Formats: sequence, structure tokens, C-alpha cells
Amino acid sequence: MATPSGSVGAHLATRLVQLGVGHLFGLPGDFNLALLDEMLPVPGLEWVGSTNELNASYAADGYARVGRRVGAFVTTYGVGELSAVNGIAGSYAEDVPVVHVVGMPSGTAMAAGAPLHHTFLDGDFRRFERVFREVTAAQTVLEPHNAVAEIDRVLRVALETSKPVYIGVPADVATAAAGAGSVEPLVAPAGDPAGLEQFRAGLAAHLQGHDDVCVLAGPRVHRRGLEHVVAGLAELPGVRVASQSGSKALVDEEHRASLGTYLGATTRSDAARAAVDDARLLVMAGTVHSDFTTGFFTHRYDREAAVELAIDHARIGRAVYPRVRLEDSLQVLHELVGAAGFSPAPPVELAPSGHDVPGADDEPLDHARFWSRLQGWIAPRTTLVAEAGTAFYGALDLSLPAESDLLGQPIWSSIGFTLPATLGAALARPDRRPVLVIGDGSAQLTAQELGMLYARAPDAIVLLLNNDGYTVERAIQSPDAVYQDITAWDWTRLPAALGAPDVHAVCARTVGELRAALDHAGTPGTAAFIEVVLPPKDAPRLLLELARGLSTTGRAAFETS
Amino acid sequence: MATPSGSVGAHLATRLVQLGVGHLFGLPGDFNLALLDEMLPVPGLEWVGSTNELNASYAADGYARVGRRVGAFVTTYGVGELSAVNGIAGSYAEDVPVVHVVGMPSGTAMAAGAPLHHTFLDGDFRRFERVFREVTAAQTVLEPHNAVAEIDRVLRVALETSKPVYIGVPADVATAAAGAGSVEPLVAPAGDPAGLEQFRAGLAAHLQGHDDVCVLAGPRVHRRGLEHVVAGLAELPGVRVASQSGSKALVDEEHRASLGTYLGATTRSDAARAAVDDARLLVMAGTVHSDFTTGFFTHRYDREAAVELAIDHARIGRAVYPRVRLEDSLQVLHELVGAAGFSPAPPVELAPSGHDVPGADDEPLDHARFWSRLQGWIAPRTTLVAEAGTAFYGALDLSLPAESDLLGQPIWSSIGFTLPATLGAALARPDRRPVLVIGDGSAQLTAQELGMLYARAPDAIVLLLNNDGYTVERAIQSPDAVYQDITAWDWTRLPAALGAPDVHAVCARTVGELRAALDHAGTPGTAAFIEVVLPPKDAPRLLLELARGLSTTGRAAFETS
Repeated sequence: MATPSGSVGAHLATRLVQLGVGHLFGLPGDFNLALLDEMLPVPGLEWVGSTNELNASYAADGYARVGRRVGAFVTTYGVGELSAVNGIAGSYAEDVPVVHVVGMPSGTAMAAGAPLHHTFLDGDFRRFERVFREVTAAQTVLEPHNAVAEIDRVLRVALETSKPVYIGVPADVATAAAGAGSVEPLVAPAGDPAGLEQFRAGLAAHLQGHDDVCVLAGPRVHRRGLEHVVAGLAELPGVRVASQSGSKALVDEEHRASLGTYLGATTRSDAARAAVDDARLLVMAGTVHSDFTTGFFTHRYDREAAVELAIDHARIGRAVYPRVRLEDSLQVLHELVGAAGFSPAPPVELAPSGHDVPGADDEPLDHARFWSRLQGWIAPRTTLVAEAGTAFYGALDLSLPAESDLLGQPIWSSIGFTLPATLGAALARPDRRPVLVIGDGSAQLTAQELGMLYARAPDAIVLLLNNDGYTVERAIQSPDAVYQDITAWDWTRLPAALGAPDVHAVCARTVGELRAALDHAGTPGTAAFIEVVLPPKDAPRLLLELARGLSTTGRAAFETS
Repeated sequence: MATPSGSVGAHLATRLVQLGVGHLFGLPGDFNLALLDEMLPVPGLEWVGSTNELNASYAADGYARVGRRVGAFVTTYGVGELSAVNGIAGSYAEDVPVVHVVGMPSGTAMAAGAPLHHTFLDGDFRRFERVFREVTAAQTVLEPHNAVAEIDRVLRVALETSKPVYIGVPADVATAAAGAGSVEPLVAPAGDPAGLEQFRAGLAAHLQGHDDVCVLAGPRVHRRGLEHVVAGLAELPGVRVASQSGSKALVDEEHRASLGTYLGATTRSDAARAAVDDARLLVMAGTVHSDFTTGFFTHRYDREAAVELAIDHARIGRAVYPRVRLEDSLQVLHELVGAAGFSPAPPVELAPSGHDVPGADDEPLDHARFWSRLQGWIAPRTTLVAEAGTAFYGALDLSLPAESDLLGQPIWSSIGFTLPATLGAALARPDRRPVLVIGDGSAQLTAQELGMLYARAPDAIVLLLNNDGYTVERAIQSPDAVYQDITAWDWTRLPAALGAPDVHAVCARTVGELRAALDHAGTPGTAAFIEVVLPPKDAPRLLLELARGLSTTGRAAFETS
């Protein structure tokens, strides 16, 4: 067994680089300078200074989601780390393995209970770690004697669970020698081979008597980077695949096996909905179960009767197979369905997207015209990022082009997430163009990251939907309440103010203005900021249906689900 | 006993108004719309929509500090509340009674464990309340049957401890009838009369044999609104008063009894430092004890031998008097010192501020010239707000004009705090002009609140110190590290971009340009944004001394304090 050379801080950085972390987000602070000075010289790690800690956590999350890898960011003790709690909680809710590294006061100062700034002056230096116990899957505060082992323990949990973890590094531990420990790259823990064989036998028996299978594929397939296995499944006869909202276009939406996005009663196509709800054999692979993913619990399929392939276990009806991992169970499914020799499934007729109302040049923009235009413009190799609210539920009804990905946050749904997440996405996949669609209310929460976005992603496109406030909340309740309004910004002035004067920033009020702006933005390598002016009470179909769910049926559904 | 009429939400709003809350900060969200619809119609409560939750918590904190009252803000469940953890923690660290009201899913949905968005889909709806247990003094999640009692229990803790509290309001509880309970206005709990009498006797005995007293008055005097009692003390013969950094100018700094700001070895005047450190009788009134307030533990006074008047107890040497409250103990001190008939204390010669290098018009700006110019410009009835870093430690060496206040955050020291806090301060004290001094690195964290600041405080002055990054961290370690840099913003374009096109926004690089900008800003009722360009490695005297403390002596001090 080799031994890490150098300091604890350098070793931690090396471990992160081994896991695919090429960009480290965060901010400096009194208690992490020594740590940063150890971490940043490690080859392969580039610093991306964030404008605040929430934005850093969002950027690291976007980096991990789109890069199908671990993301990481560094904050300082107390004042820094606590600003990132919401971002880390979102990573937990949506299974994103983000490593939150926190620079802490020196171990000697903490042991002495010194009344330092950035504390409550009460000598309790584990208080903020306790906060993160609620929103991370593992936590550690390193000591010199256990640092190497503790780093690996916590990183393994991130790999195994696909959840965020917390590593506190006291200033004097950051610079201490790392000491003995393995330097072999970490890998996600293997599953239980015996359990996998029993699952294989059980699934083979379960497939008997069926002649087709419907796969509902969820965002956890993305988290484990298993899209290619699901795509392979879709090529087999008798297989149909529907996606969830967090995994849209997991299978090419033009593919004959694709059922599009399943959302219970709010699924666009009744036929697609029926294909899922009435499937004789439903396999839920990496799915999540929530109000939004089920169209407010209007799903009719029977979860308990289905086959479920989860990240860390599998289930066939009532039989649970612990420690059978998604990567293995999906592979077994592929093998057994291939061997079963199903007949080709008849095609399912899907409803059109409705994105065929491009409008005339002199017509004012509304959601229907905006999304129709965007549908016609969006090109292959795009990372489309869509903010919770009108943007995400408009984007769900798009047909995504080839080699593209939709980044959103449908479970946690924290407004403001996508703007810094776009920065992370752009750095994780520089071969794809980042296109962000975000409402004005949401953008105000995290707008300061725009300058860094354009600095690091010089072909980024931002479509700012200006509808004078929180339209998603207006759709739910009290549309004219004072709290639905926001301060009106002069959006097209913002990129230049935030240090990106060369970005083409225009306001589009008509179809023609949007067309011209998109034409200009279509040039490869050109960054653009397009303010899209929309009526305050207009919204995409899906958003209106979900808002109805939230305000009426939703409440009833809550009470009985 | 009368009974509250109306809903739980309306009753909560009424309680807050009774405590002096005239402005409610926050953002709407799916789970607080019903709550806001109940709260906002209550007379006396005005909604101030924030651009994000951290900024809302900072604004409520500034409102409470400067208004010497309770502040309050409303967020939504999970995604909203968790963005405010850092702000609430700062309120805890610095004894600011902020009420954090959180709109939650309906009690029926929570009881059913419904897998709702904004959750971890695990049915655990108390997780985020547990987070806030670490950073608030009391928490509650209301139920219909106990809402009135629980609201009062938690608000009393805020009044008693001067700490933040957490009130979760499920959507269906917000609209439920409030039910029985008291409607008498809440008052801070009274102390222990018998304990107070014993303290009086003890202090009278302790004063025997002394012929003068030195009072070190800290920020908790502000929190209880007891400045007038300390000012009265300063009028008595034999009394000298020093302030801490969080209570600068608590006594008029031109007053003969004033010793200015005490900061251990970094106190500006050696004579003032000696007057505190060598005082035969030192009374610490509402003080805090931290690295920064003691010049990195270079204080020489003996805390254990001193008389301490804390918010909720008093101490004479080793004798502790529980439940003797600051308002009572200060009053007793005033009475007994008045009765003691001390001789007038000889005047202490204080060192000049050094703010006498205004420079010639064509000279480039540096910190010495900037602060000298500001000293000459600042007028009575100002709320001066100074951000952690160069701004706060420059402001500490100013002589504040009459009827003015310095708002900073010297214990928690979270960068970005002051910009939203200035909004709160302006609303709490509209009779005083808000003047914010903030560095560029700090301002980026919370810059989006600038539009609302100018909308609500049309005479606000912002002095943006542009020194190309984190100068306070540069002074501590690795001044040329990549993490010290920030994206260069075009600051004077920012107010217009954020919706304040009429604000006079100029960049001052020379003494003459600053003079002209301040001249223009001196007009009452005029808002201004002045970018002040300073050398990246220049800093005020105090900041350099503190940074030295942090980087060298500081570490040794940490280890031995």
C-alpha cells in the first residue's frame, strides 16, 4: 500500500481530482486560506471563485449532475458554510453527490474553546456540522491522525448513496502531513453478488408470461451515468420507455420506443399515460415518487406490484433484494429481456407538442409563441437548463435535439438554482452549449453569478422570461397580491454591469424581435442575453395544470396520498 | 381575558405589530401564500419583498438592530428557510431578536407523510426545524389547538434573550381560527426583585473604597435600547465610558467622559486603553468577549474581578445574581454611582483619528484620503453602515456625528450582510440617512438588494470600495492567490440595471472626484452610488493590525486564550 505524500489539504484535492472534479467552486475566508493554499496547487484542479456560497453550492450541483460525477466546493467556517445549506439540501433531495469542504479554525483553537469571530462565542465548534447532519449523508471533521481514512470514508458514502457529504478541515490539519493510507482511486462500493443472482432468478421467473415491458426511467439513472443501458433496452423488441421530469429525453424522444415524459394525469399524451399506467409489467428504474412526478398523485399504476430498480436495492413486487445496485440490476434486466424474445410492441401515437404556433413577426410574445420559436431554434449538443416554474414546465413539452440534456430541479424546486447551475454545467460539459431559460423572479435570487457564467462559458445563452414577478405563484393563489411583484430591473443592462460588456443583450417583445435575437445567438461561440417579455398571467400548459393541482386538487391529494 | 379574533396568521401578524414590527421582509412560495394572505391585511404591517431569503434575514436583522426592536421575515418551507440559516445565525451570534416565520405544508399533508416537492420525499417534515434548533433560541411548529400559546411562548424567548426564534406555520393552521388566548401586548419578562435587591447591596458595598468607575459598554446595551441610561451615567462625576466595536459612539465621542472604542492593544489611544485595562473598578455593561473585541486577546483587564451587567444576570467578581436584567442593573449602577459622590475624573487625552490627510484634488485615492474626506462630509442623523473588512475597521476610527449610529457585524462578520441590512436600517429609522460603506468583494454576495434599497430609501448613499477583490483576506495570507480575485464589475452601471436609473452613480479615482461626488450626494433627499477606487493592497490601520493578529499573533493567541 502506497502512502499519500504532502499535506492533508493536498491529499483531499488529489482524491477529488481522482473522482473527476476538475473545477472547485467557492469563496475564500479567514478560516480556509491555508486549506486553499494546499488544495489549489494540485494538478487538475481549477479554482472558480463564486460570488456567494449558495451560488457555489448550486454550481457544484450543476457540475455534478451534468458531468455525471462528483462536484465540490469550499467555504469558510460558519458564515460561509451556512449560506450553502439550501443548495446542499437540494443536492440531497435530488441525489447529487456534492462534496462540501469547510475550512475551520485550528484544532488547537477549537480545543481551547476560543471565542473567535464567525462563532457564537460559546466554544461549541461542532454546531454547524450538526446543521449539516440534517442535509448530508456523511460528515467528518478531520484530525491529523485520521484524516486520510476519514476523507475516504466520507467520499465512499457520496459514491454509494449519490448524496452530498461534509468535510470540515481545521486550518492546522489542512497543512499537516497526510500520513499513512491508500492512494488507490476510490470506486463506488460493489453490490452483493449472491443477492444479484437471486434477483436475476426472480426477474427471469417474473418475465414469464409477459410479452412486453414498460420502463419508467427516472433521474437516478442519470446520477449513475446509466443512460446507455436504458438506451440499449429501448432497442429490444417489446420495450417501451417513459421518462420522469428529472430525466427528460433519457431515451431519444424521436425513438419508436419512447413514450416521452410521464406525469400522471398531466402527461401530454393520453396514450403514453395509459401505456405506463396500464402496463402489465412496469419496471421503475431510478425513479423518484413525488407530487410533481405523479401529476399530484394521479398515477394509476401500482407501485407495489411493479419491479423497482433503485440505486442501492431492487424489488420485484414484495420481494426486496438489498445491496443490488442499479448498474447491475439494469444490466440484468437488459440481458433477460433480450433473451425473452418479445415481439415488437405496436407504436404508441403521441400527442403533438403544441409547439407549432410560431406567430407572425409583429405579434407580441406569449408562452406558446416563445416555446414554438425555441423549439425551432434549439440545436443538437445543448445543455438546456430550465428554472423551476414556467421555464421548466415549458421545457418539458419541448422535443430535445440529439446529444442534449435538460437540467432542472423538479423535486427540490428552489428558485434561483439554475443560474449558477448553468455555470457548473458549462464547465462539466464544455462540448455542449449552455442555454438557460429562467424567469425574472427566480433570476433575481442568484443574478450575481451572471458575470462569471459569461466569463467561463463564452457561448452561453440566457433567455430571461420577464413576466413582472412570480407567475408560478400567481397561478396558484392571489395573483394580484403585493408579494407577487418584484422590483423591475432593466435586464439588458445587467450583463455589462456584471462584467460582460461584449454579450449581445437585447429585449424581445414581439415574435420578430425574438426571431432576430435567436438568429444572432445561433452563431457558434456567441454569448447572448435575451430578455423575453411575456404577459404576467400567461404560463405553459403544464404549469397551469400543476398549479391547479397545488391550489385545489393538490390539497385534497395531499390529504389522501 | 379577551380572545384573539381572526385566523392564526392574522393573530401572529398582530403580535408582531405590537412588538414594533412595521415592515415584514421575505419572499412568497408555494407553502406560504395562505399565510401571507392572512398576515398582510393586518393594519400596521407593510410587505417588503426581498430578492432572496438570505437578504431578507439580513434586512430583518438590520431593522431590529437599528430600530432597537424585533425584526421579522417570512420564507417558504425548505428551499426558502434554508437559504436564511446564515443570516439567522448572525442574529444569534450578535443578540438580535429576529422572528423567522416559515410557511409549511398543511398539517394533514405532513401527518400523511406526503412526498411533496421542497422535501426529501421521506416524510420527515421536522428536519428543517431541527436545523434551526442550532441557530435559534426557541422553535415551534404551530398546531390549531396551541397556536396562540406557542406564538407567545416563542416571542417571549426572543424578548427575554434578544435572540432569533423560529415559527413554522402549516398552511391550514395559518387560516384556522386563532382560538382562545391573551391579546395583552407581550412584554419582556421581569427580573427577580429579590435578586436585584441583593445585587444593589452587593454593588453598594463594592463601590466603597473606590473613587471612580470605568464602564465598558457593549452592543447588548443597544439591543435593550439602554443607551440613555449609559449616557446618564457618563454625566456623573468619576465616570468614564469606553465602547466596544459593536457599540461605537454609544456615548457621544466628543463627551469628556468618552474613552472611544476599546480594542485591547489595537485601541487607538494608549491612554484610553490604559484607562480600561488599569481601571480599579471596571463595569462591563452588555459587553461581548471575542478575538476582535479584545485586539486578539491583548486585553489586560481582569474579567473575573470586574462587575458584569449581562442581559439576563449580573455578577460582582465571583458573585453571580441570576435573573437580574441589564435594564435593572444599569439603573442601579446609575443610582449608586450618583449617590457615591465621586470627584470628577481627570480628562484622558485621546489620540487623534488620523483622519486629517484629505489630500489634493489630483491625488489618487487611498484609504487615508478616503476616510479623511468621509470624516469631513458625514452629517448628523446618519445611520452609517460599514461592512466587515476594510469598511468596518475604517469606520471605527471615524468620529461619528451627533444622533448617529454605526451598524456593523463585528462578531459574526459575514460578508455581504450590510447591503440588505442597510435596507432594514433605513426602514426602521427613516429619520436618519443611510450611508453604506462596503467593499466590492462583499457587495457581490448580496448586490441584488440594491434596487429595493434605493426604492425604499430614496436618500441612501452607497460608497463602494473597489479594490479588486478580498483585501481583508489579502492582508491575512497569500495576497496574490487566484482566490483573492473577483469578476470585475462595472459598478456604476449597476443601480440602473437593478431598477434605480435616477441614482447618481459615479466613479471616483481621485480626491477631487470623491469630493465632487460627496458634494453632490450631500443634498438632502438625493440618492447616490459612488464607486471609490482604492489600491488592492491598501487598508485602514485597524484592519492591518487585526489581520496581523489573525495571521501570526492571532494563531498563538488562539492557542493560549
